[in-house]
Amino acid sequence: MEDTLRHQRAAAPVAPTAEAATTFRPLPVSAARVVGGFWAQRQQVNRTAAIPAGLTRLRENGVFRNLGRAAGQDEGPYEGPVFIDSDVYKWLEAVAWEQAREPSESLAAEQAEATALVAKAQQPDGYLNSFVQVVTGAAGRFADLTSGHELYCAGHLMQAAVAQHRVTGHRELLDVAISFADLLVDTFGPGKRPELDGHPLVEMALVELYRETGDARYLDLARHFVETRGHGWAAAGPHPRPRSYYSDRVPVRRAVTVEGHAVRALYLAAGAADLAAETRDDELLAALERQWQAMVTTKTYLTGGVGARWDGEAFGDPYQLPPDRAYCETCAAIGSIQWSWRMLLRTGAARYADLIERTLYNAVLPGLSLDGNAYFYVNALQVRDGQADDDRRNPANGRAGWFGVACCPPNIMRTISSLGSLLATADDEGVQIHQYAASAITAELPSGQVELAVATDYPWDGHIEITVLAAPDQDWTLALRIPGWCTDAKALIAGAGVAEAGEPGRYLRLRRSWMAGSSVVLDLPVPVRRTVAHERVDAVRGCVAVERGPLVYCLEQADQPAGVLVDDVQLADGDGTAVWSPDLLGGVAAVQMTGQTTPDAMSLYQPEAADDRQPERPARLTAIPYFAWANRGPGPMRVWIPLGRPG
Amino acid sequence: MEDTLRHQRAAAPVAPTAEAATTFRPLPVSAARVVGGFWAQRQQVNRTAAIPAGLTRLRENGVFRNLGRAAGQDEGPYEGPVFIDSDVYKWLEAVAWEQAREPSESLAAEQAEATALVAKAQQPDGYLNSFVQVVTGAAGRFADLTSGHELYCAGHLMQAAVAQHRVTGHRELLDVAISFADLLVDTFGPGKRPELDGHPLVEMALVELYRETGDARYLDLARHFVETRGHGWAAAGPHPRPRSYYSDRVPVRRAVTVEGHAVRALYLAAGAADLAAETRDDELLAALERQWQAMVTTKTYLTGGVGARWDGEAFGDPYQLPPDRAYCETCAAIGSIQWSWRMLLRTGAARYADLIERTLYNAVLPGLSLDGNAYFYVNALQVRDGQADDDRRNPANGRAGWFGVACCPPNIMRTISSLGSLLATADDEGVQIHQYAASAITAELPSGQVELAVATDYPWDGHIEITVLAAPDQDWTLALRIPGWCTDAKALIAGAGVAEAGEPGRYLRLRRSWMAGSSVVLDLPVPVRRTVAHERVDAVRGCVAVERGPLVYCLEQADQPAGVLVDDVQLADGDGTAVWSPDLLGGVAAVQMTGQTTPDAMSLYQPEAADDRQPERPARLTAIPYFAWANRGPGPMRVWIPLGRPG
Repeated sequence: MEDTLRHQRAAAPVAPTAEAATTFRPLPVSAARVVGGFWAQRQQVNRTAAIPAGLTRLRENGVFRNLGRAAGQDEGPYEGPVFIDSDVYKWLEAVAWEQAREPSESLAAEQAEATALVAKAQQPDGYLNSFVQVVTGAAGRFADLTSGHELYCAGHLMQAAVAQHRVTGHRELLDVAISFADLLVDTFGPGKRPELDGHPLVEMALVELYRETGDARYLDLARHFVETRGHGWAAAGPHPRPRSYYSDRVPVRRAVTVEGHAVRALYLAAGAADLAAETRDDELLAALERQWQAMVTTKTYLTGGVGARWDGEAFGDPYQLPPDRAYCETCAAIGSIQWSWRMLLRTGAARYADLIERTLYNAVLPGLSLDGNAYFYVNALQVRDGQADDDRRNPANGRAGWFGVACCPPNIMRTISSLGSLLATADDEGVQIHQYAASAITAELPSGQVELAVATDYPWDGHIEITVLAAPDQDWTLALRIPGWCTDAKALIAGAGVAEAGEPGRYLRLRRSWMAGSSVVLDLPVPVRRTVAHERVDAVRGCVAVERGPLVYCLEQADQPAGVLVDDVQLADGDGTAVWSPDLLGGVAAVQMTGQTTPDAMSLYQPEAADDRQPERPARLTAIPYFAWANRGPGPMRVWIPLGRPG
Repeated sequence: MEDTLRHQRAAAPVAPTAEAATTFRPLPVSAARVVGGFWAQRQQVNRTAAIPAGLTRLRENGVFRNLGRAAGQDEGPYEGPVFIDSDVYKWLEAVAWEQAREPSESLAAEQAEATALVAKAQQPDGYLNSFVQVVTGAAGRFADLTSGHELYCAGHLMQAAVAQHRVTGHRELLDVAISFADLLVDTFGPGKRPELDGHPLVEMALVELYRETGDARYLDLARHFVETRGHGWAAAGPHPRPRSYYSDRVPVRRAVTVEGHAVRALYLAAGAADLAAETRDDELLAALERQWQAMVTTKTYLTGGVGARWDGEAFGDPYQLPPDRAYCETCAAIGSIQWSWRMLLRTGAARYADLIERTLYNAVLPGLSLDGNAYFYVNALQVRDGQADDDRRNPANGRAGWFGVACCPPNIMRTISSLGSLLATADDEGVQIHQYAASAITAELPSGQVELAVATDYPWDGHIEITVLAAPDQDWTLALRIPGWCTDAKALIAGAGVAEAGEPGRYLRLRRSWMAGSSVVLDLPVPVRRTVAHERVDAVRGCVAVERGPLVYCLEQADQPAGVLVDDVQLADGDGTAVWSPDLLGGVAAVQMTGQTTPDAMSLYQPEAADDRQPERPARLTAIPYFAWANRGPGPMRVWIPLGRPG
């Protein structure tokens, strides 16, 4: 979501219609910043562990050497998959956002070095792709769009370049991106090459480049790419997968749901949402709302994770949400947030921010270990005993330091680095707070500048104190998102005497004469909740999940009593008790519950009547936040817990 | 299973130790024949619809043209996947078994024509693979063993050649196979090329070629291929999948379960079982028994289908048996039968014949439409409403006339054509009947010839009448398999006065002075049964399946009352009633049950307490045998039916 409408357009020439295209305006870089608490800790780990280790991996894995070869300064054969250039672009983007959070000379030096190498690898006409330049030569340019990922890599280059320019003002990477984008404009579009990249992404990158430069040709090309999708132009080359895999079966405007490769589908949807915003295309927006609705009502895991299938890394059918073979690629969760963020800006509907929250905590964050050194590519909701195999992506094998296809690690890096941008927006009426974190928020309203300080221990605690540090003289509205999971939200405005009740899944709009020194306490109670799924989600029939605040919980083997295997437990009636556990996993609120365990004695299938199951033994069960699992080695884990059979 | 120990070795020189290597001896070709009833109908459809249509497809799809190109008599580029030669070999094998069932001049002419083409395509040194010959040339020989399928195709050639020789006595195809096998002997093995084919099959084919020719070099090569597996020699080339995919992670002798690509794993296991039988290798046999046991207790669907995962067409983890995304490739079911048959012969344990029965009716047979013109590649146990997509393998899209990768159709053909071979075996004590069908069985015992006539309407009815038409003078044992599902089996020997009770999952051994005219009636009651799965099979928690005799049942949308969607039904207590329905699907025993349906009103996730589900409406539900589903177009279907919540 780092590449959204967030910047104020004052500095850039912009098409006149674009200015009012959004409902909520994103804030400029650094106008909303995490300053402490839960997310500050995650950002610190990201900066000090993940990003430096990522640089080492990029060096080891040949990503820089490939670019060096393309630049003619390095020898040896190309290394890694065809799209590996994108790893360096995503890493560069993360570094740009880190520079915005807190400038660093060493980061700046690494950034400059990598940027110079990218610039040197670019060919005179703007083309840039180390695989093609090193392996296939000019004849391979745009020769395998279905599988070659050339425009996908170009898109990541543009996103990194915009981030770098926006944060540092340096044009070097931006000029590389512009030069490549110009080549794309000359090559693709009506009357030119009609094919599309098999992996969407360039659409939202082109819109962002348009926003940064004001050059409407990029918007036009993005429009062309979005509008011609679904007619077989992405699968025009040899395609080993069905067209749905390439998001190329149904035109975006006609689609009624999400299908196929989840990351491709979500990146395309995010690009289409950008397009709908910039072109005020309400028909396209309505199509996207319909698809988003289908996704959240039939194809989204409780964690916010999406993409049920390993096969094709794809969305499953409606209600096909198996916890054990859930794919839930970390990148898909990031794509989901990017899409929801664009929908939120355009519609102002809290449901989009709700899904962002759920997804951030429970589908993106689990992708990174607590120490910032290891990743999940796949985020299953259940791992059984003895399930390890020789697939590095399989979470049963534990986290991995990196992957052969390493899309997820630098994607997490740039997401965490740019997290502040998701916290708040502004419109002419006031400021909207979407995500709660200890933070500092500044926004320009027509009537003047607002400065807010948010203090909270969220998500562990639902007590949120917002203090106005500066405000215009006139009335303005502070809009606070009441999460969909929160049924008893109350806001107490200091000095006002009465508490305002908030409706779940809506913004609580507090319009008044806020002044410097005004404050409000938002109370979002976070009792332990037990959640059930729709009857059609056959895979979790007879189970409940445990949640608290925005966090989904799970049973991990390490926390259970000796002799109690997570595979065999059942939950008793009664809510659990949250217990703050400072020494557990860096400090989490664990949930203790009463359950039972059944010895494994039954055969695989048997007559219903001949129920020879052994009697249950009571067991004290402990659940931890799902994002924190697998930090003590691999082992059994489950989010959905079977209910005990009625005695 | 067409390529098993079934022939008597009288005509072929055989290594002396091999003779006593099995417990049950397979009967010679045509010594056990289906003569009527259920399977005669299936064999007739296979012969008159599937096999001729298959020939047309082979012609259309370029399989013959590829061979013609390899023979230098045809122009144009190679067509289809690299392993497409194997389609013609499997089809030729089916035709050979049909010639054994009932000779036909037109089949003989087609057989001769295809055989001549194959012979002409072979190169002087024995090499034969149309992809390599047409596309890569000599440099491509054995150059990509991991993915090239050259030995896989060679194995299918050997199996077809042995079948043709055994049935017709013609040597033409056998000589082609021998020549290729000799090249393999010269190329692979200790001190020669160490790599293995990524797709096992050649192992069992080589053992069979050894049995047919007596040439122990083929047995030795099979031993080499089995023993060196699991050390990375199959994945020695570039391998896009983990080693488990190629059955190359764990040596066969050390493996404790089945894993990876199901067809590969099962073909390898069958070849290893052949090897264990021929070399009297009890350690290897014990390893295979352990793996088989792990498969049936943790990785087998109720249908006998195996291979839970679309991704990698692979076995899942233990208890990972989702009904909706079940892969259950038809070929994997066939491989399972091939393996079980070899284990049955060597061990004499009825559990292997039990699994063969379950798999034949419920995992192989569903792969072919009732009219013999359309196939399933994937055999899911559940299809939801509105699930169609653009993947031809997806059963939600209905059956297909053929596939781009068409391994399954000719595999079904050869399986149904050679079905008689699975019915019975002999040992020195007597005759064993494993599968019940209206059939004629002839077996040579040391004391003389036995001829039996079996009359039955099985599987619709469990009444089985076995009449002795000829018998030696001495006592001998008629052993009748009592299926594991049958709790009240009784055998009434005519004139003997008392009924003998049979124990489920064992052979009922009736030793006596059987004479011409003796008869026995075996009664296997087939009430409707309700079956539950192990608690760890999370995917079907709270569900039951309906079975009757060897048949697994399912609810198909076409049979339910208006307004009752299969996705939303629940079953009430109480067994169903079987109703013979002569006009339904060519005549089936349908099962009628009482259930209820819930209107779809719930959101995807909601608090456990806020149960706002609508009241149920009673519904009369009708189940049909699973093998017969999807003969009235695609639509919702389910094998596992949720139980109604306690009121």
